[in-house]
Amino acid sequence: MAKKTKDYDSADSPHSVGLTEAKTFRLATAEKPFKLELGGQLGPVDIEYETYGTLSPAKDNAVLITHALSGDAHVAGWDKHAAASGRVWRARKPGWWDTVIGPGKPLDTTKFFIVCANFLGSCYGTTGPSSVNPATGRAYALKFPLVTTGDWVRQQAMLLDKLGIQRLLGVAGGSIGGQQALEWALAFPERVEKCIVLAASARLSAQGLAFNAVGRFSIMNDPAFNWGEYYGTAGPQAGLAAARMLAHITYLSEEGMHEKFGRRATKDKEGFGAEFEVESYLNYQGRSFVERFDANSYLYITRAMDYYDAAAQWGGGDLAAACKRIQAEVMVVSFSSDWLYPPAHCRALALALSRNGQPVTYVDVPSRYGHDAFLVETKPVGSLLKNFLVRRK
Amino acid sequence: MAKKTKDYDSADSPHSVGLTEAKTFRLATAEKPFKLELGGQLGPVDIEYETYGTLSPAKDNAVLITHALSGDAHVAGWDKHAAASGRVWRARKPGWWDTVIGPGKPLDTTKFFIVCANFLGSCYGTTGPSSVNPATGRAYALKFPLVTTGDWVRQQAMLLDKLGIQRLLGVAGGSIGGQQALEWALAFPERVEKCIVLAASARLSAQGLAFNAVGRFSIMNDPAFNWGEYYGTAGPQAGLAAARMLAHITYLSEEGMHEKFGRRATKDKEGFGAEFEVESYLNYQGRSFVERFDANSYLYITRAMDYYDAAAQWGGGDLAAACKRIQAEVMVVSFSSDWLYPPAHCRALALALSRNGQPVTYVDVPSRYGHDAFLVETKPVGSLLKNFLVRRK
Repeated sequence: MAKKTKDYDSADSPHSVGLTEAKTFRLATAEKPFKLELGGQLGPVDIEYETYGTLSPAKDNAVLITHALSGDAHVAGWDKHAAASGRVWRARKPGWWDTVIGPGKPLDTTKFFIVCANFLGSCYGTTGPSSVNPATGRAYALKFPLVTTGDWVRQQAMLLDKLGIQRLLGVAGGSIGGQQALEWALAFPERVEKCIVLAASARLSAQGLAFNAVGRFSIMNDPAFNWGEYYGTAGPQAGLAAARMLAHITYLSEEGMHEKFGRRATKDKEGFGAEFEVESYLNYQGRSFVERFDANSYLYITRAMDYYDAAAQWGGGDLAAACKRIQAEVMVVSFSSDWLYPPAHCRALALALSRNGQPVTYVDVPSRYGHDAFLVETKPVGSLLKNFLVRRK
Repeated sequence: MAKKTKDYDSADSPHSVGLTEAKTFRLATAEKPFKLELGGQLGPVDIEYETYGTLSPAKDNAVLITHALSGDAHVAGWDKHAAASGRVWRARKPGWWDTVIGPGKPLDTTKFFIVCANFLGSCYGTTGPSSVNPATGRAYALKFPLVTTGDWVRQQAMLLDKLGIQRLLGVAGGSIGGQQALEWALAFPERVEKCIVLAASARLSAQGLAFNAVGRFSIMNDPAFNWGEYYGTAGPQAGLAAARMLAHITYLSEEGMHEKFGRRATKDKEGFGAEFEVESYLNYQGRSFVERFDANSYLYITRAMDYYDAAAQWGGGDLAAACKRIQAEVMVVSFSSDWLYPPAHCRALALALSRNGQPVTYVDVPSRYGHDAFLVETKPVGSLLKNFLVRRK
């Protein structure tokens, strides 16, 4: 539920990072492959990333942004090569968190060096199931290995090594981006000064697992899915659209949907078309997602989302025990109407830190925008980000 | 989330209505068709219904039970012809509300005459899209006319006329069964003494519309759907299963799912199988539904569910104005963790009646079973039903 284009800064605004160009980093080669947490290895691995601002001589002003399910490295500004690269949708709007990143914005690019990398398994320039498998000369499809949040964080750490950044001033993300931020503080405690977890908890609920399962079921049971071997064809468009429509319901809130659509009718006549506005909205979300996302990536990323469990990974099931590893100052931000990562679950993470006597800030932002609020509630989110990053211990 | 078979009374228990046989009532003929609220007409129309207990000489002990989306007329006891009729699943368990209906049970069949009819558009004996269209000699499929809650209630009224029941002691149902109970009190105010609305409000929310829309999208985009002309083939099994799996998430609650499944793993290895118990559960629900439900019926019934809006229909958008028609004493029962028909929405119906000074009882039953609670919370629901029906004004 991003704002309309007109509300964004144009590329020549003094508050925009302007035109951006993605860079690619070869993280691993066939000879020196990347080993995955759940087994298997990959090589070559390319990582697409973007940076804005300038790394300070002391290299102490880097802020890593971690993206969510359908996100990419293009966090701010206007993609210089949107049309030429085939990512035409980027010509219509700036990066996904442009509202908070830019000169004079909360994540002020005149002060901070911002880095964001597309994660493994995705379809925006980083190696994923749609990439060519050197062993066969065709796309990996379901031969791609399973990826995890831990893999993503290690991949980002390797990129930072390459950029000469030993320690992050901050890492920040929402949804599974928030889980990556948390995982950063757990996996590389000495490399994170401040960790910002938005609209995320230490693990997905049973209900969240259930929604992901139905989304994958829709994709995998679309006959056009063809066991993942659909490259060169239209692919499982209906299945992927259904998965996205369903996910969209979980991104909004009941009251937000009521406010936005209510039970208003469209001009469609009675029957099984898009007769209510909310149907028309979901159809649009489904259709437009199919144009820009790979169905196999959807499977791999939702599975990584399912698997993430910070307490199991680092504390033998005990979240407070896991959190003891963390050296960073942590801020957890939930949104009152978020039911995908409900406030109570986010608060549990803050409480675990607090019980250990570790520095933690917890804020529940009142909002009707549900899970999407981390992208939409620009003002409170912006000021929380800014104050938390600027404040010194 | 019904209880296991062993918890039910067997057919020879003194508390069971025993072996049941459905009856059929020809409601309309080709010559004298049934006219539908949204236009069009149907004939012949057959209605499958069941009754338990004995109608009193004064005909003042009839209680009509109205069923939900996937329900049928078989509310209690054991279907005598389960195997022979091809409805084999009925051999495994008694009627869907057997826990509260029977001799000595809350809806005591030694006192009340219980009636339940399968509604138009369904697939359990009453005319629906899978029935033969006399005009073509083939199933109606999408040539079946749109049906509404109003049609269902008129159909039930015609059945009661035939049974010689002028006035109901009570009408009770949950979910869209609750909406039918409400519609009874609105459409036939003089024919209802007590109206019991469980887990239902005066209209579905935008979020509810959205879930139904995604379910229908899944069915209609399954290539095996073939524009509804799938009879004689396997039909849109994957689409219908996805719709059911999704709906099942809305029938449970987040905390209920957490308690029932948590994040427990199955023995499936890592990948895209049913690796979490909740996935295995949903897969089972999807598969078993496909065996017993018609996909076209799912479309028609969810659309009727979407359309229902008591305030729009009877009060020009004002629920309290609509409620002024009601002469019955009303009881509204919500369930604390129901998020398909949330307590606040159910309460709004009770408040509208209360503001008019009309007799209404509202109870929010604390439960972790979500929307399913009206079927599962046997004790509180049973005692509410019993006390409300037995109490005299």
